[in-house]
Amino acid sequence: MPNKNMPNGRNTYGKRNSGKRYVTYRKAPYKKIAKPPQAKESVRIAFLGGMNEIGKNMTLYQYKEDIFIVDCGLAFPNSDLPGVDLVIPDFTYVENNADKIRGIIVTHGHEDHIGGIAYLLKRVNIPIYATKLTIGLIKGKLEEHGLLGKAKLVEIKPRDNITLGEFNIEMIHVNHSIPDAVGLAIRCPAGVIIQTGDFKIDTTPVDGDMIDLTRFSDYGKKGVLALLSDSTNAERPGYTLSEKSVGDSFETLFRKAKNRRIVVATFASNIHRVQQIIDVAESRGRKVAVLGRSLENLVNVGSELGYLNVPQGILIDINMIRNYPDDKLVLITTGSQGEPMSALTKMAYGEHKKVNLTPNDYVIISATPIPGNEKMVGNVVNELMKRGVEVIYEKMYEVHVSGHACQEELKLMMGIVKPKFFIPAHGEQKHLQKHADLARAMGIDNENIYIADNGDLVELTQDSIKYVKTVESGEIYVDGIGVGDVGNIVINDRKKLSKDGIIIVVATFDSATGYAVSGPDIVSRGFVYVKENEKLMGEARDVALAVIEECYDGKYHDWNFIKTKLRDELSKLMYERTKRSPMILPILMEI
Amino acid sequence: MPNKNMPNGRNTYGKRNSGKRYVTYRKAPYKKIAKPPQAKESVRIAFLGGMNEIGKNMTLYQYKEDIFIVDCGLAFPNSDLPGVDLVIPDFTYVENNADKIRGIIVTHGHEDHIGGIAYLLKRVNIPIYATKLTIGLIKGKLEEHGLLGKAKLVEIKPRDNITLGEFNIEMIHVNHSIPDAVGLAIRCPAGVIIQTGDFKIDTTPVDGDMIDLTRFSDYGKKGVLALLSDSTNAERPGYTLSEKSVGDSFETLFRKAKNRRIVVATFASNIHRVQQIIDVAESRGRKVAVLGRSLENLVNVGSELGYLNVPQGILIDINMIRNYPDDKLVLITTGSQGEPMSALTKMAYGEHKKVNLTPNDYVIISATPIPGNEKMVGNVVNELMKRGVEVIYEKMYEVHVSGHACQEELKLMMGIVKPKFFIPAHGEQKHLQKHADLARAMGIDNENIYIADNGDLVELTQDSIKYVKTVESGEIYVDGIGVGDVGNIVINDRKKLSKDGIIIVVATFDSATGYAVSGPDIVSRGFVYVKENEKLMGEARDVALAVIEECYDGKYHDWNFIKTKLRDELSKLMYERTKRSPMILPILMEI
Repeated sequence: MPNKNMPNGRNTYGKRNSGKRYVTYRKAPYKKIAKPPQAKESVRIAFLGGMNEIGKNMTLYQYKEDIFIVDCGLAFPNSDLPGVDLVIPDFTYVENNADKIRGIIVTHGHEDHIGGIAYLLKRVNIPIYATKLTIGLIKGKLEEHGLLGKAKLVEIKPRDNITLGEFNIEMIHVNHSIPDAVGLAIRCPAGVIIQTGDFKIDTTPVDGDMIDLTRFSDYGKKGVLALLSDSTNAERPGYTLSEKSVGDSFETLFRKAKNRRIVVATFASNIHRVQQIIDVAESRGRKVAVLGRSLENLVNVGSELGYLNVPQGILIDINMIRNYPDDKLVLITTGSQGEPMSALTKMAYGEHKKVNLTPNDYVIISATPIPGNEKMVGNVVNELMKRGVEVIYEKMYEVHVSGHACQEELKLMMGIVKPKFFIPAHGEQKHLQKHADLARAMGIDNENIYIADNGDLVELTQDSIKYVKTVESGEIYVDGIGVGDVGNIVINDRKKLSKDGIIIVVATFDSATGYAVSGPDIVSRGFVYVKENEKLMGEARDVALAVIEECYDGKYHDWNFIKTKLRDELSKLMYERTKRSPMILPILMEI
Repeated sequence: MPNKNMPNGRNTYGKRNSGKRYVTYRKAPYKKIAKPPQAKESVRIAFLGGMNEIGKNMTLYQYKEDIFIVDCGLAFPNSDLPGVDLVIPDFTYVENNADKIRGIIVTHGHEDHIGGIAYLLKRVNIPIYATKLTIGLIKGKLEEHGLLGKAKLVEIKPRDNITLGEFNIEMIHVNHSIPDAVGLAIRCPAGVIIQTGDFKIDTTPVDGDMIDLTRFSDYGKKGVLALLSDSTNAERPGYTLSEKSVGDSFETLFRKAKNRRIVVATFASNIHRVQQIIDVAESRGRKVAVLGRSLENLVNVGSELGYLNVPQGILIDINMIRNYPDDKLVLITTGSQGEPMSALTKMAYGEHKKVNLTPNDYVIISATPIPGNEKMVGNVVNELMKRGVEVIYEKMYEVHVSGHACQEELKLMMGIVKPKFFIPAHGEQKHLQKHADLARAMGIDNENIYIADNGDLVELTQDSIKYVKTVESGEIYVDGIGVGDVGNIVINDRKKLSKDGIIIVVATFDSATGYAVSGPDIVSRGFVYVKENEKLMGEARDVALAVIEECYDGKYHDWNFIKTKLRDELSKLMYERTKRSPMILPILMEI
C-alpha cells in the first residue's frame, strides 16, 4: 500500500496519477503480479552483513521454501584486528538452509559486495546473477581461488528479470562510483521490496546513463511494501556532486601543472574517474601509465568489456615512462588511502622501484580518506611535500565526489518509491539512525521503520514488520589462507603481545627427582631492550627460581599450580618495576 | 628591518607611522635596545620538537653563551608505536649544553607544551617561567613525579619581562583554547624574534581578554627579525570562530534537550568551554557534575586560581546525581576523542560504574576528532545511539571551535609583526608548507622563509637565515615508568608479534652427549587457535626434530647455527601452510 502520510501535499499515487497512461517497456515488460498481495502472505529478510558496519554486505530474502542472497562482500579490518587481512560474513545460516538457496544476485563490483563470494561458493555452489562488469570482476576473484570452472555465472542487464523460485527480481540501473551498478525490485506474493544497493543520483554521469528513476517510480506507483536504501552518506546534507565535476577539476589542475609530470591517485575500481583522467590527458597530449596491480586489472577488464574507452596509443607501459618528458606524462596510481604497500605510498617514501618523484611532479589525490585512514593519508601528503612535490588533496579542489546519495537524494528515492516500510541499509548505527530521521521527515510512520542489526531475521506482511529471531551471523577473519582459524582468543593475544610484549620463562625438570636440571631461563621479546635491563632479567630469574623451589614438594609437581604461580609472581614483579603487563608464558619441560 | 615587500600598499612602518606618538605601557615599559642590532650579531635557534609533527614542542634560543628553552611538550603515540604511553623529545643536546641553559619559558598549559617538563627537570634542574594557570598545571605534573620541592617556578604576567643572560623576553597575551596563553617577544643584541606560541584571534573571548595585538604591532613597528608562528590550522581558510559561538550553541541545544539529562564531552583543558557549560547550566537551573580525573583536576585548579567562576552550589558530586531528576542535571565528561578508558566511552559501552545512559540522555560531543581518532569517536557515537541516546556530534552544530588561528588570522599576524624572516612552527610538513605559502602571499621573500625539521640548528643575522648543523634530537618513548628503554627493536618486535603472533620452539640438550633429552616442544601465542591446528603443530615439531638431528655432529652443537636453521625451516613451513609469518623464537637449553 502506498503511504498516505507523504508530505508536500502528495496524495497516494493512485489519485495523483490516475489520468496517466502506464508505460510498459519493451525489454522487460512489467510482470503483473496475478493477484494483489494478500495480508496473510509474508516475506522474510535476514541480514548477515552491512548493518552497523560499512562493509561485508549480505542480505537474504525468503518466501516460503525459496531463499536468495543479495551481495556477499568483505570488510577491511580496522586496527582492532591486528594481522587479519579481511573479514567475511559467517555463512552458517546459509549452509543450514543450503537446500532452499536459489542463487545470489550481486548489485555491483565493489569489494564490500563481491569480496566474500569466493568463500561462500566453497560452502554452497549457487548460481551468481549480475551485470556484465560485475561478472567480469567476480570472475577475477573466482580465478584467484581456483573456482572459475565450477561456478555458474549468469549475466543480466538492467530491466531484465530473474526468476528464483517464487521470487521474480528486476534489476534497475543506478549511478555509483563503479559502472553497471543496479538496484533491485524484488517481487513475491507478499509484495514488492526495493533494495537500492549503493547508489547516487547523477544527472550527468560520465557514461551518460542516468539512474533509472522512472523504473523506481513505476514500482512506487504500483505500491511498494518496503524500501532498503543506502545509508552511507545519510549524515550529509544536500546532493552529491556529479562525477563530471571531477573531470572539470582535472582540466583546471592539469593546466596548473604546467610542464610538470602529473600523478593522480584514485580508487582502483572507479572506472569513470580513470576515464576522465585519460580523456583530459589525451586532450593535453599526455601519455598515461598505470601503477598498481588492482588498477592494471581494472583497466584491462574495463576496456575489454567496453566500459573504458582508451584511445589508441595513449596507454604506455610504466617501464616506458623514461622515454617521455615530464610534461607528456600522467601516471594513474593506487594508494589514495595511504595504504602502506601501495604505489603512491612507496613513491612518497622514495621506495618505488620505477618512479622517483621530484619537484617536477604534481600529485593529485583524487579521493577522500575513509574514516580511520586520515592519518595515513596525511603522512603520505607530508612525505610527498618533503620531496618538494606539489600535492592537491582533500578539499582543496573538487578532485573527488562520493558514489553515495546524500540526504536530498535519499529523500527523493523515498519520495518516488513510496514504501510502506523502510529499512535503512549499509551503514553504521549513526548512518542508519540519520536515514531513519529522513524517513520520518518524509512522513513514514516511526513504527514502519526498522533499524536492523546483523543477524536479525525480520518478517514483513502487508500490515506489519517484525523481528522474528536472531540467526547465526558474525565476523569470520581471513588471515593468509586461514579462514576462521584466527578467533577472539588469538586476536586478544596479539593485542596483548603488541602492547607490552612477552616474557617466556622456561625450565627443565628431571622427572625422576623432580629437580629443575636446567633453567629457569628468561627470554623476552617486545618488552624492554634486554641489554639495558639485565638487572631486571636477573631479578625475574631469581623470582622464577624461588617459585620453583617453593613449589617443589619432594617429588611431585603440580605443573598448573607452578605455571599460575610463575605468571602471578612475574607479572607482579614486572608491573612493580616497569608499570607494564607483558604476557608471561611459562614453559616447563621434563626429561 | 621591516619587510619592504608587504602587499596592499603598506609602506615600511617607519614612514607610515612617522607621525604617531609611540605609546609606552605602565606595567612593562618597552625596554629599548641600547643600540640598533648589528649585522655581525647572530642568534641561534635549535628545534628539538614540534617540526614535522603535532606535539612535543620544544625550541632553544642561543645568543653567545646563553641558552633558554621555550616549551617542553609531549606527543601522544599513534598506532605505529604499540604499547608506548607517550613520546618526549631527546634531551641530549640540552644535557650537553647544561652549563649555558638559563631557564625554560612555557607558553601555555597544554600537554604538547608542558608534558615533557618533568622528564627534562630530571636531567637539568632549571627555573621555569610561565603565567599563573600554566604554573598551576605544571605543578600538578611535577607533583606526580615527586619533583615539586626541587623545582624553581617563577610566575610571570603578560607584558612582564624576563631577563635570561643576554636575552630579555616579554610575554604577550594571546587567545587559545586554554586561558593564560602567551606569545613571546625575544630580544637580544641580534634583534627581536616573535614566537606566537599556539594562538587564535578571538575578539570576543569568554574571559573578555582579547589577544594583545597592540603589543605585537609595537614590535612590528620597531622591526622584527623573525617570526615563528603557529601552523596548526594553516590549511584552513578564513577565521576561527570565537569561543563565544559555542556558548550560543549550548543555549540552543540545552533548550532542545528539553527534560532530558545533558551530557557534554569536551577536552579536559578547555576552561572556557567548561565555564560556558556551567553558565548555561546555571541559567537553566541545572546542577553540574564532572566526570574524569583530568576534568576534575582542571575544575579544581581553574577555580582555585580564579580562571573558572563556579557559582555557589552548582557543582555536585557525581555520587549525588541520583538525588536529582534528569532535567536538573548536566554531566561534563572526558572522552571527546573516543579514548578507550575515558568516562564517555565507558558510558557508551555500558561499563561506567556511576552513569547509566538511557533514551532520556542527550549527549553533546563538544570537540572535533583529532586526525587518527575519527574511527574511535565514530564508534562511541554508534554505541551511544544504540542505547537510544540522541547524540550531537561533529559538524551538526557549532559545538566546537578550534583554538588555533586560520589563514586570515595567520596573515594578520604576519601583517602586524612584519618580520624579515619567517619560520612556520607547530605542524606537520603540510601545515608548515601551507603556512609558508601564506607568508609568500604576504610578500615575504622566499629565501627569507625557513621550513625547519626537528634537530635543525639555524643561525639568524640581520641579513641571513641559515642552517648551521643538525643537533641530537628524536623521540624518546615512555612506556609505564620506563623512559627510553623501549626503542625501535622492541617496537618492531611488538608490531611483528601483533601481526602474526609468536611460535616458540624449546628443547633441552644433554651437554655431555649432545642429545636432545627433552622436546622439541612447540608453543604458540597469537598465531592460530591451537586446538584446531594440532596437525600443523605436529608438523612443526617434526620439522624442528629433523633440524636438531641434522645439526647433531656427534657431540658439539653450534647453537647459533641450529637456531638460525630452526627459524628458517619453521618460517618456511608456516608460510607455506598459512601464508603468515609469525615470529619464530628457538630456546635451546642444556643440562
